[in-house]
Amino acid sequence: MTFPTLLLEIGNHNVEVAETLIGVGRFLLIFLAARTLAELMVRLQLPTILGELVAGVLIGLSGLHLILPPETGAELSNWFTSTVASLSSLSPSAVESIYIETFPNLQSVATLGLFALLFLTGLESELDELVAVGAQATTVAVTGVVLPFAMGTFGLLYLFHVPLIPAIFAGAAMTATSIGITASVFGELKYLKTREGQTVIGAAVLDDILGIVILAVVVAVAGGGALEMGPIVKLLIAAALFVALSLFLSRTAAPAFDWLLDRLKAPGEVVVASFVVLCLCCFAAQAIGLEAALGAFAAGLILSGSRHTHAIQETVKPLVSLFATIFFVLIGTSMDLSVLNPMDPANRPGLVMAAFLLVVAIIGKVAAGWTYVSKEKTNRLVVGLGMMPRGEVGLIFLGLGTQAGLLTPALEAAILLMVIGTTFLSPILLRLVLSREEKLAEQLA
Amino acid sequence: MTFPTLLLEIGNHNVEVAETLIGVGRFLLIFLAARTLAELMVRLQLPTILGELVAGVLIGLSGLHLILPPETGAELSNWFTSTVASLSSLSPSAVESIYIETFPNLQSVATLGLFALLFLTGLESELDELVAVGAQATTVAVTGVVLPFAMGTFGLLYLFHVPLIPAIFAGAAMTATSIGITASVFGELKYLKTREGQTVIGAAVLDDILGIVILAVVVAVAGGGALEMGPIVKLLIAAALFVALSLFLSRTAAPAFDWLLDRLKAPGEVVVASFVVLCLCCFAAQAIGLEAALGAFAAGLILSGSRHTHAIQETVKPLVSLFATIFFVLIGTSMDLSVLNPMDPANRPGLVMAAFLLVVAIIGKVAAGWTYVSKEKTNRLVVGLGMMPRGEVGLIFLGLGTQAGLLTPALEAAILLMVIGTTFLSPILLRLVLSREEKLAEQLA
Repeated sequence: MTFPTLLLEIGNHNVEVAETLIGVGRFLLIFLAARTLAELMVRLQLPTILGELVAGVLIGLSGLHLILPPETGAELSNWFTSTVASLSSLSPSAVESIYIETFPNLQSVATLGLFALLFLTGLESELDELVAVGAQATTVAVTGVVLPFAMGTFGLLYLFHVPLIPAIFAGAAMTATSIGITASVFGELKYLKTREGQTVIGAAVLDDILGIVILAVVVAVAGGGALEMGPIVKLLIAAALFVALSLFLSRTAAPAFDWLLDRLKAPGEVVVASFVVLCLCCFAAQAIGLEAALGAFAAGLILSGSRHTHAIQETVKPLVSLFATIFFVLIGTSMDLSVLNPMDPANRPGLVMAAFLLVVAIIGKVAAGWTYVSKEKTNRLVVGLGMMPRGEVGLIFLGLGTQAGLLTPALEAAILLMVIGTTFLSPILLRLVLSREEKLAEQLA
Repeated sequence: MTFPTLLLEIGNHNVEVAETLIGVGRFLLIFLAARTLAELMVRLQLPTILGELVAGVLIGLSGLHLILPPETGAELSNWFTSTVASLSSLSPSAVESIYIETFPNLQSVATLGLFALLFLTGLESELDELVAVGAQATTVAVTGVVLPFAMGTFGLLYLFHVPLIPAIFAGAAMTATSIGITASVFGELKYLKTREGQTVIGAAVLDDILGIVILAVVVAVAGGGALEMGPIVKLLIAAALFVALSLFLSRTAAPAFDWLLDRLKAPGEVVVASFVVLCLCCFAAQAIGLEAALGAFAAGLILSGSRHTHAIQETVKPLVSLFATIFFVLIGTSMDLSVLNPMDPANRPGLVMAAFLLVVAIIGKVAAGWTYVSKEKTNRLVVGLGMMPRGEVGLIFLGLGTQAGLLTPALEAAILLMVIGTTFLSPILLRLVLSREEKLAEQLA
């Protein structure tokens, strides 16, 4: 069923019924799966985000095919389509069309969740601390970008004889740090406000900015077009301006925000005013060519100077609990784990390459933890491990490479494995390191 | 620009930039307009919801053309499209296509807001209070539903020759009582704990249940086209069973919910568990052929028996503040107020109809104040005026009718005028009556 046929049916009550059943049903599946596994993770003393990712894998492309992003191109579970079809008196194929057509609604809510999470991360950041760790964070970010990129690209070129462009692309995908996953793991382990936590968050934000610049360069190179300096310099200037401006505003704009908030009388003023600041910053970031996600973080940073920080946190947290969960589950649903099966000989070259990329991806970021100079004693392993998860940022690189037809299936699988591996290992290793440290501290006390 | 052309551009970074700018920009416009007018309303001692509605009118079809539901078919403000076009390096027509294509994302978030609001209304319903005022409240509620419905529907049918389905829909929209507005007005006037206040709140709660049952029946009938008795009886039974079951569950299921909540350990458990109950009830209602909105209200009613009601309210309120605002603003944006212009002779029938609906809407509810039997002396005018505001419940009816394409522009405008009129007049008249009474009491003392 194509769009025109579907459009003819709009206004049909059955279509509305199916839309509601699909929309509500997807929420139910996502939350039941995510929460069941999150509860399991809490009992295993692991971050809940792992539960959400696994939940996504279980109900997604590699599992039950209940939640399927349309770009996977896979077919929906028969059980799902036939249930909705019989309840709404539509054909299963019509149900599948509506499912695909309404999926962007779910994705936009997930994006809202990501923005809310980044906003909260910014809000909970100690600005003074962030500035104090500025030099360290910059060193960690730059090393964490250069090392994996160089090692990955040259390794693929000389060890695996991958052509230049795909090798560069894979190298670029290894530079990412998922600020969303990092922030939620550190937040859950109550490690966000430590010196290590702030260094990692600062470095992850810088990493995001560097990632955008790298992406612009790589896409230009891969597109066969000449490597023009103009746009790159423009991006770099925009990024620098953005960081400077949000640091400046976090000192000056918060009092103005408080002044306004004290004068607002309509109920719900805290959450609405915060949301407006969030939207303004996302719009500004996107308008100057950066990612909207950076704007969300900057908005939180700006309001971290407010007198109402606690009230803002309380109203934003429900949004994060609901919608960021959807974001992480959706990442899980799009993972194709069948490439991991070593029984299939076709997978083996990819698996070897994947093992190489994974090791390099881990070494590159962990090593970055040892590159900065600090007078105070910090746990460098925690910083390195915190930089490890590629998460959604790695997946975005992978998606762009696949779309551009730059990657062989083996390389695609290898990058995917590197992303999945780092994303899963980081919280597990962090938890291990931190709990061992807690025990040492207890023994000393 | 049509779909295929647009699809070719997917993967294009500029499209993603435009999508973000449009999505975030729409939120900004909606909240800036809604909040400015809500603050104005608070200062005029009028309900904020009126501000949200007027904000929608100002930025929508009847105003600046900044937020335009695609079904209006009108052209977007040139200022908006050219701004986004220049920031994203796309053509204005491409921007307009993306605007239309992504509008359902905004609508789905608005629906989420509506469900959250109805959930909260159910949650705040005091079942014990309702039982205590018992007979009086029931009489007021039933008369206040039957009178406006009968007078409105038959008047439209026989005086204005409106077809049956739209006439029934308009009649149904007149049965509503906004429990939110009623409660806030009585609270503001310190009249909530009086016998009149209790009766009105009890009747408004009952009215909400009756209204949603009527809504479920009317929408289902309208969707089916023909007015058959079989499906109506089936729906009435389903609706009655559904409400009875949720009343029963509010006594029995709430402890189970509390038991579960006490055992959940992953953060955000209150909002997620409540959201799951909400989704389950919406799915169940829709699956048996009722409106999902009924499920949302029932979910609130069920959880009103929980020990955690306060915590649930606190986590749901931010969702309502953000997303229900979008719902009400969107209703305003799709209103074509040009049909209210009395200078255009073509509009006069609609204006006459609006005047008729407004008068019937006032008479129907005020008369209900004189129908109950009470041994104690009560101010029946206060009860009647308290039942008058249609508020958000009337707008929900109107929004659903518009979405279903059931209403002519004239009838739409007439219902809107009736809703706005009763909602504006009720607090003003109540204040007049009560201050006169206070003066009398002072003179007697």
